[in-house]
Order: sequence, then structure tokens, then C-alpha cells
Amino acid sequence: MSNQLVFGHKNPDTDAIGAAIALATLMAALGEDATAVALGQPNAETKFALEKFGLKMPEVVDHVADLTDKVMLVDHNEFQQSVSDIKDVEITHVVDHHRISNFETANPLFYRAAPYGATSTIIWLLYLEKGIEIPTPVAGIMMSAIISDTLLLKSPTTTEIDKKALKELAKIAGVDYEKYGIEMLKAGTDTSDKSTKELLDGDAKSFEMNGKTVRVGQMNTVDIDDVLTRKDDFIKDINSEIAADKYDLFVFVITDILNSNSKAIVIGSESGISNFKKAFGKNVVNDVADLPGVVSRKKQIVPQLTAAY
Amino acid sequence: MSNQLVFGHKNPDTDAIGAAIALATLMAALGEDATAVALGQPNAETKFALEKFGLKMPEVVDHVADLTDKVMLVDHNEFQQSVSDIKDVEITHVVDHHRISNFETANPLFYRAAPYGATSTIIWLLYLEKGIEIPTPVAGIMMSAIISDTLLLKSPTTTEIDKKALKELAKIAGVDYEKYGIEMLKAGTDTSDKSTKELLDGDAKSFEMNGKTVRVGQMNTVDIDDVLTRKDDFIKDINSEIAADKYDLFVFVITDILNSNSKAIVIGSESGISNFKKAFGKNVVNDVADLPGVVSRKKQIVPQLTAAY
Repeated sequence: MSNQLVFGHKNPDTDAIGAAIALATLMAALGEDATAVALGQPNAETKFALEKFGLKMPEVVDHVADLTDKVMLVDHNEFQQSVSDIKDVEITHVVDHHRISNFETANPLFYRAAPYGATSTIIWLLYLEKGIEIPTPVAGIMMSAIISDTLLLKSPTTTEIDKKALKELAKIAGVDYEKYGIEMLKAGTDTSDKSTKELLDGDAKSFEMNGKTVRVGQMNTVDIDDVLTRKDDFIKDINSEIAADKYDLFVFVITDILNSNSKAIVIGSESGISNFKKAFGKNVVNDVADLPGVVSRKKQIVPQLTAAY
Repeated sequence: MSNQLVFGHKNPDTDAIGAAIALATLMAALGEDATAVALGQPNAETKFALEKFGLKMPEVVDHVADLTDKVMLVDHNEFQQSVSDIKDVEITHVVDHHRISNFETANPLFYRAAPYGATSTIIWLLYLEKGIEIPTPVAGIMMSAIISDTLLLKSPTTTEIDKKALKELAKIAGVDYEKYGIEMLKAGTDTSDKSTKELLDGDAKSFEMNGKTVRVGQMNTVDIDDVLTRKDDFIKDINSEIAADKYDLFVFVITDILNSNSKAIVIGSESGISNFKKAFGKNVVNDVADLPGVVSRKKQIVPQLTAAY
């Protein structure tokens, strides 16, 4: 059981899968016996990126303790986002760009975190520090991961180091990152085969705000009005979820990733709607509000709602 | 309140104080406004090292939230080892060589951990990575910190990278590290002004083992027999602590740091003593046991006792 498994979070995005491939490749170059796996199927964007650079999707697993006794985590640390039997294995390495919470180890370990736009940016630094050349396809998936997490360097989570990493990786991959980035992000927004319920639940999270529960979901698109042709179905599903889970407010943000704007479907109690208006200074007209310039739930939606509540 | 405070754990040792000075100096060189402080008075060893390299002891504080809103932790992460109001400030950086436990943040941060012998070894790597020259006195205290934590590279926690860091730092400091190391460690063992109770409590820790509580203390010396001239006083104090705190076993390890050997005063229940014998294959004669080659509580005492229990 000397082979270490390297993986990102559940419901993996392109950074979770790309960073796992990149770290496993680096570790192998350093003489470690490490293999990338994933805790879920790739989304449409990740599939597009893997295919573009001729990479195989890592094997999908839902438990690891019968496969190995040591693991490396990328792009997450909180145990509830990790594999179900994470407590039965030793974590030897973590590379991540999130806060640290609900995480502990029995032994000292390698932990490398930085508040950058993507975990793949940190792994790019690790390659530099170790003086290891990044194979072309690996540079391609790392580049894709940075584009995905930063929405082509437009998200407010983007740092100067993300920009530098993306440009250097694009050179290695031999790709025009702006042209490729738009293609990849567009590929990720093909939602024609998804139900409104699937889109609502996709990456929705619940937040406790002053004793009430607020649900905030988000989806990316290249055409907000096209998504809003299904508005009535969204509203029906949101009302069912509110009835079942007693949300005070449900905000479903539809983000135009090309123009960095959003509109939101906003349903909730009278005071919930009023808190939304206070948070953004925007009216809700026929259950929809304009959110110009908003792209980041973490930085531009949740703190504002929390303050209003 | 833009000035960030940098500090190590409570009851600071030479690595806690040395790493704080070293990281604050590095951050200042990188343009950050950072100042080292300490969560307690220096011990005799740390005083000797600071004096040798002409460094001022950092200011001692017991709270920080009224002084700053952002802090950097070195050589610890567990909140119970940190400043009392740690939850009232934002932690922006951690550099550490311990396990991660009882630690969380609200935001992403810089976290750098590695399973090396000393935190100062990791900070030496950071200077290299950033291409910043280490000032001579700072190299001196970093060198002292590595000598302290690794007992002059003899502790089983020592790694190849600690050896390399120590040698490079000694070159910058212009010091024969073996000669200086023995002087410094000796300075730290001057316990003539301490009561047996103070020595017992110095860095003693309690461990839960199979429903019983085992207390393990340790002190360093250059002459075990000299320490054992106070054996009767130690035994009296140990018996008082056992009566007060219901320890099943009390092991007080006296370590000869020059020859890497220990003897232990061992007092406890009949089954506790029997577990000690099982753990080390050594008899306890007149309350004392020989522990040849043992220097690390973390690696050579606690796991063996845990297994026996």
C-alpha cells in the first residue's frame, strides 16, 4: 500500500481534478509513488479541457482506505468535502486555496496554502521551486483550472500571481489562453440536458444569517436571457425547496461569464426580499433582479446578504 | 492597526522565539509591516542565544486584539497553545512543523507546514525561495532554534533538510555550530535556581491511555546523576501530583543531551509500572529506569506507552 492517492473535493470542478493531476505528476517526478483520483464524475467544462489536452480522466472513487493508507488533498481540506473515509487514512500533503476548517491530523504533514485564485496556481509555484519541467498536457489542464476558478482572470479572487501562472502555463501548453478560455467556459455552460432542479442544486449552498436560512445557488452561462426562458420552471422548483426546507430567502444567481454580469431569481419572505434590496440596492421585478458586475458568490453576494440580515 | 504581530506558542522555546524573529525579519524585507512578539519570557537557553547574537528579546504580550487585527503564527497552530484572544484577530500566515488540530480560519490564508525538526528550517527555505539574504544575527538565532529542537541534530525528528539548514546558517552566522551548540544546550540546562516542582511541571503533558491518565515530563541536562541527587524531592512532588490528579503513571524523563541517553523516575499504580516495563523492556529499580538512546518524548516514549496500555 505504498501508492499514495491524490484527490480534490467532492462534486469536482476543473481545479479539483486539474490540481490532482498536476500534484500527482510533480510527486512522481520527485520519486514518490502517487496517483490522481477523483471523488466524482467530471463536469462538461472539465471533460472539454481533459479532451483538449489528451488527458485521461482520473479514476473515480468514493472510498480510499482499502486502496491506500496515505493520501494527499488538493483544493479542499474540510472533511465534509472530502472522501467519506478520510479519517481512516493518513494525510501527508495538502495543497489548497481555501480557509482551513473541520480539518485535523495526528501527525505533522506538508501543508501548502495561499489565498490565490486557484490551487493550480500554487502547484505551478511548487514546480518552479522544485525545478521540475511541467509536461505540456499537465500545463494545459493547470491553465484550464486557473481559467475556471478565476473566470478567465475576471473574478475578484484573482491575484497577480494567478495572472502570471496562467500566462506561463499557456506558453508551455502552446495555447492562446483567451480564445481557449472562452471556448472552455462556454463548453461548461451547455446546460440543455439538465433539468432546472439539477441547475438549482448544482452548487447551491445554505447560509445561516441571523437565525434564518438563506440559500444561494449560482450557474454560469454565456446568455442570461436564454436561461431565463425557463424562469417559470425555476420559480416552481424554488418554491418547492422553500416549502420543504423553510428557507427565508432563495437567491439563484445566473452569471454571464463573458461580460461579468449577473441576474438573480429572488424568492422569499417579505423581510427576506427586503434584505436582498438592502444588500444590493436593487429592486426585484417579477422575481428577477439585475446584479451588474457581480460574479463571485464568496466575495460579492454572501457578505452583502449577511450584512443586510 | 496595519502592523502585524508574529509569535510562537506559549511557554516559548528557542524555536518559538527564533522563528518569530526570523519570519518578521523576512516579512519586513518583503515590504510587510510585521513585528515579532512572544507569549512568555525566554528560558535560559533562549536568553543565551539572543545574547550571543546581540538580539533583543521580543516584547512579551498576553493578548493581541487591542494591538493589531492581523497576526502570523509560527511553531504552533492549536488555539490552546496560542494567545488567549486568538479568535478575535485574523490569522494571515502560519509557519509550523506540528500536526494541525484545533485550528480554523474564516478566510483563506498562507499556511506553510512541513514535518521537519524545527520551524526555523522551514523559514530558512522561505528565505531561499524569496531570494532574501539572512542577516547575520537572524541566522544565529535560526541556527540556535534548530539546535534546540533537534538536540544538535541527534533527535529522531531530525531530517536531512534540518542538517543542511543548520550548516548553511552556521556559515552565515560565522559560528562552529557543534561547539556553540553544546554551549547553548548546556546553558539551557542550568536548573540550579529551579525547584523540583518547577522542573516537573516545566513541559509535562498528560496523555489519555485506555481510560487512564499518564503524565510524562522531561528535562534536559548534561549530568543525569547530578539531577538525581534531588531524587527524593522529585518523588515527593510526583506523589503529591498523583494524589491530586489521579495519574495512573508518572514518568519524569531526565535526558543527557550530550550523550543522547535518558533515565526516568517512574511512579504509579502496580499495573502502570507493569505497563512501563512492557513498553521499554526495562525494570524500575528504586523508582528509576534506564532508557538508553531515548531522547524524544514524541517519538520514543508516548507511542510505546500508548501501545503498552
